[in-house]
Amino acid sequence: MSLTVWTNHVFRPEALPVFESQLRAAGHRLIVSPKASPLVLAAGADDPTLAEADVAFGQPDVAQVMACPRLKFVELSSAGYTRYDRDDLRAAMKSRGVPVTNASQVFADPCAQHVLGQMLALERNLLVQFRNQQAPREWRYLEDRFTNGTLTRRTVLLLGYGAIGRRLAELLQPFGTQVTAYRRRPRGDEGVPVVGEAALPGALAAADHVVNILPDSPATTGWMDAARFAQMKSGARFYNIGRGTTVDQPALMAALASGHVGAAYLDVMDPEPLPPAHPLWDAKNCFITCHIGGGTRDQDENLARHFLANLEAFGRGGTLVDRIM
Amino acid sequence: MSLTVWTNHVFRPEALPVFESQLRAAGHRLIVSPKASPLVLAAGADDPTLAEADVAFGQPDVAQVMACPRLKFVELSSAGYTRYDRDDLRAAMKSRGVPVTNASQVFADPCAQHVLGQMLALERNLLVQFRNQQAPREWRYLEDRFTNGTLTRRTVLLLGYGAIGRRLAELLQPFGTQVTAYRRRPRGDEGVPVVGEAALPGALAAADHVVNILPDSPATTGWMDAARFAQMKSGARFYNIGRGTTVDQPALMAALASGHVGAAYLDVMDPEPLPPAHPLWDAKNCFITCHIGGGTRDQDENLARHFLANLEAFGRGGTLVDRIM
Repeated sequence: MSLTVWTNHVFRPEALPVFESQLRAAGHRLIVSPKASPLVLAAGADDPTLAEADVAFGQPDVAQVMACPRLKFVELSSAGYTRYDRDDLRAAMKSRGVPVTNASQVFADPCAQHVLGQMLALERNLLVQFRNQQAPREWRYLEDRFTNGTLTRRTVLLLGYGAIGRRLAELLQPFGTQVTAYRRRPRGDEGVPVVGEAALPGALAAADHVVNILPDSPATTGWMDAARFAQMKSGARFYNIGRGTTVDQPALMAALASGHVGAAYLDVMDPEPLPPAHPLWDAKNCFITCHIGGGTRDQDENLARHFLANLEAFGRGGTLVDRIM
Repeated sequence: MSLTVWTNHVFRPEALPVFESQLRAAGHRLIVSPKASPLVLAAGADDPTLAEADVAFGQPDVAQVMACPRLKFVELSSAGYTRYDRDDLRAAMKSRGVPVTNASQVFADPCAQHVLGQMLALERNLLVQFRNQQAPREWRYLEDRFTNGTLTRRTVLLLGYGAIGRRLAELLQPFGTQVTAYRRRPRGDEGVPVVGEAALPGALAAADHVVNILPDSPATTGWMDAARFAQMKSGARFYNIGRGTTVDQPALMAALASGHVGAAYLDVMDPEPLPPAHPLWDAKNCFITCHIGGGTRDQDENLARHFLANLEAFGRGGTLVDRIM
């Protein structure tokens, strides 16, 4: 089956020809959208070239996906899919038998390593020491050596338990941490203790590290609010590797200012890009990375590998990885 | 058996009474040296109170240990024991049947977590992002997201394979890294592939991360020299969590300046404290923490637990943990 594959994913210049030749070797044709944007969170612009495609890979415009009867398979080049999480799209894809996948597995491993790096950076005083290296270059030995911690025997609460949470739980295993996960609907197959709403306050109170991995949805907007920050153990640390909208940021800043939340390390915020004058940059013990958690040098190769495997499975009627619709 | 235990370890003020009461509960008496120094690498000052002791815990003066016939057991409160690594001391302790232990296990876990944190901080661009947060607060997305890496499938070479190396290999296990260790005398029970001198150049050339954990000794002075840095893979990263003297620092700075060594993250240097004007602070892509790798908030409690367990074992003729003589 020869397919026409459309993409608006912005490949690195050297990665695009590799992807195109891999597609060609599999008997397919590539259309590169002239409207591709390097910011995956920007809305995919309406693009008439999509109408020629059998398969869309990237961040296609939702209305256009619904309006293109020729489309047979869609893979999103991201893990988040807020724009696509709509009942009308779901219904249209279901009625036409069009599977939709995302690229969760591509981003889960770097995200998990990113947040583990953030946890260790705080425990090991790496940022304080780095600031000292810039100036004044004191011998910060007693100050930091004896405020250092480890993750050994610490309690970690994961808010949400998808691909990132599972990977982080794997990475934490040899530390001897106690990992618990919160899910709206515990399934029983998580492999770690899972709490629902009822047990959440106790889990928040027990955790030394609270890692927010919740996706963006109407149900999660401002989910981590003043009441939930107040339920956290005094001095515990908060991380956000999910989506910025799930956190009530003024409540977080107040909890940091009072010292109740010991530190926050955020990879996602609301809005993004975070304006230089936004107070979050200056919030006490608040550390920020600019939504780089899922990124890697070889992301394009990993995305291409993920998509091509799913395209091959689609062609033979096999099971697709990371199917969301 | 009631013993008089001497210490010049500088406990935190709240930890010392706990240690003393634990000793008293076990039927022993504590003498606290009036000459204790908070810098464990400073030479233990000669102290007449040591002459009354059956057991020394801390950093006792070597000559005095040899001159005190009453001493029956010595535990060092550090992992490194350069000052004690002497044939005359070894012979004296052996002839008098005095076991000497260090506290390797207390420091191995935090050291391993420290260097893993350093590895992830570099892979995940955490320091670059932190500098951006101080100023200019740009949205460093494309710059850092696509230079980010992970440890997945990377090759890690450990130079030396004692307690820290074993713990680091455990922590790296779920990352899917390829861990190899260098030892002068491979034993075959390491649980990871081990190379000796002959295979070392190949192992250096294969590694993405070279972690130096060598102890200080006449045989290791300047061990990591220009020739060995040249054998490293171009762009690979170098870490030192062992002792500063084992690295030829001018050679490291030259390798960093040329870009052949992609980055260095050092927790130990020569000298320590590193003077503010030392060029290592300014070396290209060289990151420094001030010998805090082994430290934790609960270090005194962990040292006391380690010593008291060994003291109990000594009292009943059992096996001592971390015995070095």
